[in-house]
Amino acid sequence: MTAPDFNRLFSTRARELQSSAIREILKITELPEVISFAGGLPAPVTFPVDEMRAAMTQVLAGNGREALQYSTTEGYAPLREWIARRCSTPEAPVDADQVLIVSGSQQGLDLLSKALVDAGDTVLVETPTYLGALQAFSLFGPKFIPVAADEDGLLPESMDESMRGAKFLYCLPNFQNPTGRLLPEARRRQLAQRARELDLLILEDDPYGALSYDGETPPSIRSLAPERTVYMGSFSKVLAPGLRIGYVIAPPALRAKLVQAKQATDLHTATLSQMAVYEVIKDGFLDTHIPTIRALYRDQCQAMIDALERHMPQGVRWNRPRGGMFLWAELPRGMDASKVLAKAVEQKVAFVPGAPFFAADPEIESLRLAFVTVPPPRIEEGVERLAGVIRSFA
Amino acid sequence: MTAPDFNRLFSTRARELQSSAIREILKITELPEVISFAGGLPAPVTFPVDEMRAAMTQVLAGNGREALQYSTTEGYAPLREWIARRCSTPEAPVDADQVLIVSGSQQGLDLLSKALVDAGDTVLVETPTYLGALQAFSLFGPKFIPVAADEDGLLPESMDESMRGAKFLYCLPNFQNPTGRLLPEARRRQLAQRARELDLLILEDDPYGALSYDGETPPSIRSLAPERTVYMGSFSKVLAPGLRIGYVIAPPALRAKLVQAKQATDLHTATLSQMAVYEVIKDGFLDTHIPTIRALYRDQCQAMIDALERHMPQGVRWNRPRGGMFLWAELPRGMDASKVLAKAVEQKVAFVPGAPFFAADPEIESLRLAFVTVPPPRIEEGVERLAGVIRSFA
Repeated sequence: MTAPDFNRLFSTRARELQSSAIREILKITELPEVISFAGGLPAPVTFPVDEMRAAMTQVLAGNGREALQYSTTEGYAPLREWIARRCSTPEAPVDADQVLIVSGSQQGLDLLSKALVDAGDTVLVETPTYLGALQAFSLFGPKFIPVAADEDGLLPESMDESMRGAKFLYCLPNFQNPTGRLLPEARRRQLAQRARELDLLILEDDPYGALSYDGETPPSIRSLAPERTVYMGSFSKVLAPGLRIGYVIAPPALRAKLVQAKQATDLHTATLSQMAVYEVIKDGFLDTHIPTIRALYRDQCQAMIDALERHMPQGVRWNRPRGGMFLWAELPRGMDASKVLAKAVEQKVAFVPGAPFFAADPEIESLRLAFVTVPPPRIEEGVERLAGVIRSFA
Repeated sequence: MTAPDFNRLFSTRARELQSSAIREILKITELPEVISFAGGLPAPVTFPVDEMRAAMTQVLAGNGREALQYSTTEGYAPLREWIARRCSTPEAPVDADQVLIVSGSQQGLDLLSKALVDAGDTVLVETPTYLGALQAFSLFGPKFIPVAADEDGLLPESMDESMRGAKFLYCLPNFQNPTGRLLPEARRRQLAQRARELDLLILEDDPYGALSYDGETPPSIRSLAPERTVYMGSFSKVLAPGLRIGYVIAPPALRAKLVQAKQATDLHTATLSQMAVYEVIKDGFLDTHIPTIRALYRDQCQAMIDALERHMPQGVRWNRPRGGMFLWAELPRGMDASKVLAKAVEQKVAFVPGAPFFAADPEIESLRLAFVTVPPPRIEEGVERLAGVIRSFA
């Protein structure tokens, strides 16, 4: 009864898979005594539990058999129509036939990789970029080329002829994970222009755009270059992540391939979940709900900035996000955030080192702090603990 | 505003994707006036709508915030434990740590492909085999080698040394899709033995095993060769397919890679859906529910066999499944089922031609008839229409 030699059976991509940083982080955050700034978990107090319960009851009472049956790969039509209306702009209308419902926008990354990436293809990413995207793309063997960035996000002027021929540029212009950066309007216009000059496809990932603290964001890149932008959205940060409902808006030729890829991947996203989400949002719920999330996260962000100012030793720097869930910090030059993390966890405080978010040349001093999962008094306490750990390294 | 040339951007696998037969079939079945034996849709009368509504209310009232939050990639622990207990046999116990919850067992096929298949690898499949599996595997570029079969399923004695080195053998031993065939116990034992001799991994896909009309099935292949079998199960046919909840039971080394692949693919399966499924089944619901599905499907199967006997012209043959949702038929020699389908749809009756289910050398005369979606009087009417179409070809 000898088992087969799995090392012989594993695919090349499986052999290259390493135990994931995100995964190890989620394990740390599971310990209740740890004050965790690590996970990217939305604040559970914002979840519309009662509305979701009412919606589930409504859908199952009214259309129970439909809700529990197989459904089309494209997704629930009323939900696709709602998304199309919501994302349309006068210059760049969206048709419901361009929308594909996915099992969380992470699945959008998997399907886009399937449709676009052959091993060895070039994929352009921000510096740094979303780790989950690097993981999703990596299963298909691309070569990553980072696009330079500063504290306002990527620098379109740095994109040169060597990037022509890349399969796409992946970017997160609104309150980026991990940095919280917001790409200014002028840069978005430059980026649209530069993408046209270099004939590049853009994947615009936007889970956090609705979480602008002042309610404003610059125009989407899709609205500026609709012919060459794929837009990814999610209900994870404005409703609830555990439902796994996201969406992709793509030019028709690409959307057709994404539908075929999704059919082979998981047939379709859960019918009942799609119908319940639509039931919750169809009469304007998000218009009153999202402002309450924004207000909460703005206060929590401010609480963290205040605590950082009070406790951090000289030489530690951080940004001041205008939306989203994350703040980006830098330790004094040469101090390795992953070593600080090991010590911090002993002191029952956690964060994510920035290095894994870089496709190349990691900044070992950088780190990501999530300020939305932990309430303000715990933020204060956690930052104080973390400051103590950093001092012990200096 | 010229769009990029997507034909240049598509991956090799995307370029090879064709508009899927299953997909076109589902479109046909959507027309209400068509009597469809095409779709593999479980009978909606069997869906536990009231129980699901009660479970959703219970879960959201008791653990609403947990149910709507991100959760672990492995899946909801109580559900994994339930599955482990359910699938354990004295000779082949299952630990909850071997179970991975997936977004429908179709996703199991995607993740197993990711973990195991490099382009050009050999994958062994039955003759014929599940079309959705061919589609899932195909995204990763394997070379398919069919294993010979007769009316009782695959023939282990036909597996020779040329199959050594294959990444796995994929099989559906219980009431197979598309044929409804049940692999006898003696062949399962031969298969386990042959797999050991050739050092092969087996993927045992078992969505229909619970739908045995007499309640019996031979031992699972996993129970006969646990060290080299991956078992895939699903709640789609015993509870409801629209929930998209399936599971994979794998040897530990492989399961670890599947978890990593799933994390990159969609983070995790919807928390609320997993908790609601567990809430429905935890106190033995399936033990009373499954027999009602079996009785219904047995009667529908008999209704179709009776109708075939009454109406089909000479030269048309079919099998008599002892479980599941499908029956396999053969038209008179040389009659192309896909041509018959085109005419049948004009007469408002649909089925699936068998050819796409063959990895090689399709039998153009074969076809699959699903007897569970349409009630008996419509089965009678549909078979009569279909018999008329076939007569017009003879």
